[in-house]
Amino acid sequence: MQIINSAKDMQRYSDALRQQNKRVAVVPTMGYLHEGHLSLVRIAREHADTVIVTIFVNPTQFGPNEDYKSYPRDWDRDVKLVTSSGADCIYAPEPVEMYPEGYQTSVRVDKLTQHLCGIVRPTHFEGVTTVVTKLFNATKPHVAVFGEKDFQQLQVIRRMVRDLDMDIEIIGAPIVREPDGLAMSSRNKYLSAEERKAAQVLSRALFEIRDMCAQGEHDALKLSQHVWQNISTEPLAKIDYIKICDLETLEDVTRIRRNAVVALAVFFGKTRLIDNIILKTA
Amino acid sequence: MQIINSAKDMQRYSDALRQQNKRVAVVPTMGYLHEGHLSLVRIAREHADTVIVTIFVNPTQFGPNEDYKSYPRDWDRDVKLVTSSGADCIYAPEPVEMYPEGYQTSVRVDKLTQHLCGIVRPTHFEGVTTVVTKLFNATKPHVAVFGEKDFQQLQVIRRMVRDLDMDIEIIGAPIVREPDGLAMSSRNKYLSAEERKAAQVLSRALFEIRDMCAQGEHDALKLSQHVWQNISTEPLAKIDYIKICDLETLEDVTRIRRNAVVALAVFFGKTRLIDNIILKTA
Repeated sequence: MQIINSAKDMQRYSDALRQQNKRVAVVPTMGYLHEGHLSLVRIAREHADTVIVTIFVNPTQFGPNEDYKSYPRDWDRDVKLVTSSGADCIYAPEPVEMYPEGYQTSVRVDKLTQHLCGIVRPTHFEGVTTVVTKLFNATKPHVAVFGEKDFQQLQVIRRMVRDLDMDIEIIGAPIVREPDGLAMSSRNKYLSAEERKAAQVLSRALFEIRDMCAQGEHDALKLSQHVWQNISTEPLAKIDYIKICDLETLEDVTRIRRNAVVALAVFFGKTRLIDNIILKTA
Repeated sequence: MQIINSAKDMQRYSDALRQQNKRVAVVPTMGYLHEGHLSLVRIAREHADTVIVTIFVNPTQFGPNEDYKSYPRDWDRDVKLVTSSGADCIYAPEPVEMYPEGYQTSVRVDKLTQHLCGIVRPTHFEGVTTVVTKLFNATKPHVAVFGEKDFQQLQVIRRMVRDLDMDIEIIGAPIVREPDGLAMSSRNKYLSAEERKAAQVLSRALFEIRDMCAQGEHDALKLSQHVWQNISTEPLAKIDYIKICDLETLEDVTRIRRNAVVALAVFFGKTRLIDNIILKTA
């Protein structure tokens, strides 16, 4: 496993591959890997000769009262998992290399970031788009794979890539779930046993309205009320938002006329979980 | 002369060169080329096998009351000049291709843009950094050449490239001046004969304090007062700003302790001209 820490070294590695006509894929992560990440690596492998996994807990995408310091980290375990996943290289820069003194540049996507998580995490997506731009410039990929669990992030990155003429194919990968339906997330580690059990309610509620929609219920208000009531039966759950929105613009829809997404953020104790599911009209 | 209008075609052109191990340079321009631009092409040629000139009058770097619509354009003349300059390719995208409906992404450099021209043109540099990012992503250069006449722009771009880990060498090229000292600019075309003559005062004033500084006058206040008084003798000149600042941070200096830059913007009628010169301590 090749482990690279500096952008310059990363660029030389990728340049050499491109010289040999190899296709390069990148899977950006914040580490503490789980089966969801490994599924991204496998998808990346289908699209490229060489797969780079980036591991960087990006300080600028955490708000001042969020969990940057406590975000779970386990370098040795991550290296083992990346190795077993069949990736070729880890790019793991240090925060001080990424944001040295005098650093002052940002990349921002405007409208898409003003919905869903962007409302309660107003600086989050600017942190994401900026660091992803840096990771792209360092790894120089042909293709990049992101999980659909962070649905808004995926759409924001697609927009950024298109708007800035980045020559990178963005692939969204399906959510990987635990056997009981909970979407895999590094933050699941924070949950107590009781919260972990309670968190099942999220996927259950989402699956139900996916089926209701498929069976002809296209009134978005009714569907979101159903999710709301469902989750409210769980005393440990504190709803941040539940939204049904257009896949492209992320604007609220009142009626499902074409495929839409229902996205939610719900606290269990101090842990904020997100999940989503696509609602199909036919 | 290869003329390319779409980002995708531009990327394929540049990819093919990179595959052949050719070094690619880009010279971004807004067209209406003059000897200053051509000097950039010659410098680019020294650093690369292939030189791409971009011609794009970027709407987003003009303020609402600025000269976007009247900015001088002469496509046929530009093509002839680029051809004669020894460049290999022109990248000339259309505004609607650069900023299609739904476009919403920007690149911003924070501190450096809050001095000098950034004060009176608050949206200008965000327009510049965003379009330059797009031009870089389309042309995929190893090296890019910018004129030192737009000194702040050059420093802002250097900062952006460093901060975002863009793998591009940025070269600053010396100001090219008319025989009477006026810095070459596409906007000089706007000047009446009388204003054109009056505008000589700018370079004269700058040359004088460059010499004063070299001879030991390091008091920045005295030096800038000298320029101010010099230019004020010209009744057609209306000073926007005259600043002596640190080369790196663009913050005002009170004493020239290491190399600094004196930068100015002065109106002649409706035409706003900028110029600058490096002040060397030894």
